[in-house]
Amino acid sequence: MKVKEKYAVGVDLGGTNIKIGLVTQNGKIIKQVSVPTEATKGPKAVIENIKKGIYLLINNEKIVFEGIGIGCPGTVNPEKGTVQNPPNLPGWNKVNVGKAISMEFEKLVYLENDANAAAIGEMIFGNGKNYRSFIMVTLGTGVGGGIVINRRIYRGNYGAAGEIGHITINYKGPKCNCGSFGCIEAYVGNRYLIKRVQQKLKNNNSILTNLVKNDFNLITPKIIKEAADKGDDFAISVINDTGEKLGAAFASLTNVLDIATYIVGGGVAGFGKPLFDSFRKSLVARVMAPNKSRIKVLSARLKNEAGIKGASALVFHGF
Amino acid sequence: MKVKEKYAVGVDLGGTNIKIGLVTQNGKIIKQVSVPTEATKGPKAVIENIKKGIYLLINNEKIVFEGIGIGCPGTVNPEKGTVQNPPNLPGWNKVNVGKAISMEFEKLVYLENDANAAAIGEMIFGNGKNYRSFIMVTLGTGVGGGIVINRRIYRGNYGAAGEIGHITINYKGPKCNCGSFGCIEAYVGNRYLIKRVQQKLKNNNSILTNLVKNDFNLITPKIIKEAADKGDDFAISVINDTGEKLGAAFASLTNVLDIATYIVGGGVAGFGKPLFDSFRKSLVARVMAPNKSRIKVLSARLKNEAGIKGASALVFHGF
Repeated sequence: MKVKEKYAVGVDLGGTNIKIGLVTQNGKIIKQVSVPTEATKGPKAVIENIKKGIYLLINNEKIVFEGIGIGCPGTVNPEKGTVQNPPNLPGWNKVNVGKAISMEFEKLVYLENDANAAAIGEMIFGNGKNYRSFIMVTLGTGVGGGIVINRRIYRGNYGAAGEIGHITINYKGPKCNCGSFGCIEAYVGNRYLIKRVQQKLKNNNSILTNLVKNDFNLITPKIIKEAADKGDDFAISVINDTGEKLGAAFASLTNVLDIATYIVGGGVAGFGKPLFDSFRKSLVARVMAPNKSRIKVLSARLKNEAGIKGASALVFHGF
Repeated sequence: MKVKEKYAVGVDLGGTNIKIGLVTQNGKIIKQVSVPTEATKGPKAVIENIKKGIYLLINNEKIVFEGIGIGCPGTVNPEKGTVQNPPNLPGWNKVNVGKAISMEFEKLVYLENDANAAAIGEMIFGNGKNYRSFIMVTLGTGVGGGIVINRRIYRGNYGAAGEIGHITINYKGPKCNCGSFGCIEAYVGNRYLIKRVQQKLKNNNSILTNLVKNDFNLITPKIIKEAADKGDDFAISVINDTGEKLGAAFASLTNVLDIATYIVGGGVAGFGKPLFDSFRKSLVARVMAPNKSRIKVLSARLKNEAGIKGASALVFHGF
């Protein structure tokens, strides 16, 4: 007997676009739409756009779906369905997105911070499937993540937990956006990383200079990877250094949490194998004895679909 | 109607002595004995000495007690009652202390790592009474601690969690005993701290030199505190620097765990108010916005009785 396929709607609420997908319980996207967020028009307009997008997705489908998952930036209260002060969405003080969408479609709505949604996505559909506990690391503009302990997101008593980008590796290091110094984000977050590479390029020979035709504004993790693949010493050292620093930051985390599995995604993770190798090496060298043999560094599997799939995974995972 | 007082036996298993006390449910030590550990004679002899000590304590008492709590160094499995490779207790590979003591006295025996026992002691009898979650920091020879989340010790999946002394504050910092670099223990653990003070004293004017009559081997946290109390700039800077570094390490922890309450004990905590003030200031400056107003740094209350009281608290707390 074939088990009937189940479906969920996953909403990836971004500052520019709202991406919405119909996703199977196995993590396959059946259909996908995108509508503009129109963030400047304020929360009411954005909520109307979410509704519009979901109608666009399901109107001609005869598929019954289990619920709606929404991943969005900012401080989320999953129980209440509220979002507080999401960056990129101006005018949102505290908005009950969950209730508005739930009433419209008469379905359970699962709201979650986008970094946590990505972690749950990896847990349900991706490389976290077989791990009881793991750390999801998203190497994007900043360094974000989610801590999964015994198959649940660890949120802390006030929902402020999991700020793994703000682990300090040098208390006298560069100033971080958060106000502190030497956070791992201030070293390997995309904007900080690129800025440092641009500065260092002035005093280093590298084919990077040719690859971007002397326009350092064109430097991206992808182009650094390209140069490294061609054997460029400078680019290789940038990648190795990134991995070494990640290992220094997250060794502290493993020593404290006794979690040795890392799943790494985001743009900077595009550095690929050399990054994963140096990160792993640095972790193994630095963690305390009992965790050395347990260290695993895996790449995230959901990639560009992490937003929609992570959001839909919320429905299958439950609260 | 007066509620009948309940009692527990608390065993503080040290490398030199076994201290045992009869403790009330309110944390009052009624009677206390101490017997030599005789660690060199191996686990069997030590277990016999624990039994001997408990008999010494209870033989002439008509008090019924609820159970026996044992705090000891090393990796403890509280469910199984086993200790693995405790430092200072040679020849202990894996010993089931819990079973041996439980069979002798026909009571439930609660075994716990001494750092965790101290945390549970503060939670039940001390300054952790009113906190759902807190970090216990023991500033001794090393930097140890216990993480209490929602009134339970966080152990991790393999029992290796809570190594808060091995949070790095400078990835290129001094070599730590654990093999890594720049761990907070390598800066403020008693042995490292005193060593650095001894070195720095060669190039600094301080009344410390007179206080120890030029014998730098006599320098202790207590004497540094004495010099600071007399207004000695060098001693004051040592204490402030210790607090600043503790803040840098534990800001990372608060950002990750969303726990803002610290309870601090151990010899180096004897630096007193100036240490607590600089630790607090450094934490507030470094943690992310939502936790700034929640930061609390309290001194441990159990002091010298932490061992016995912490162990007896295990009985009242349960598994």
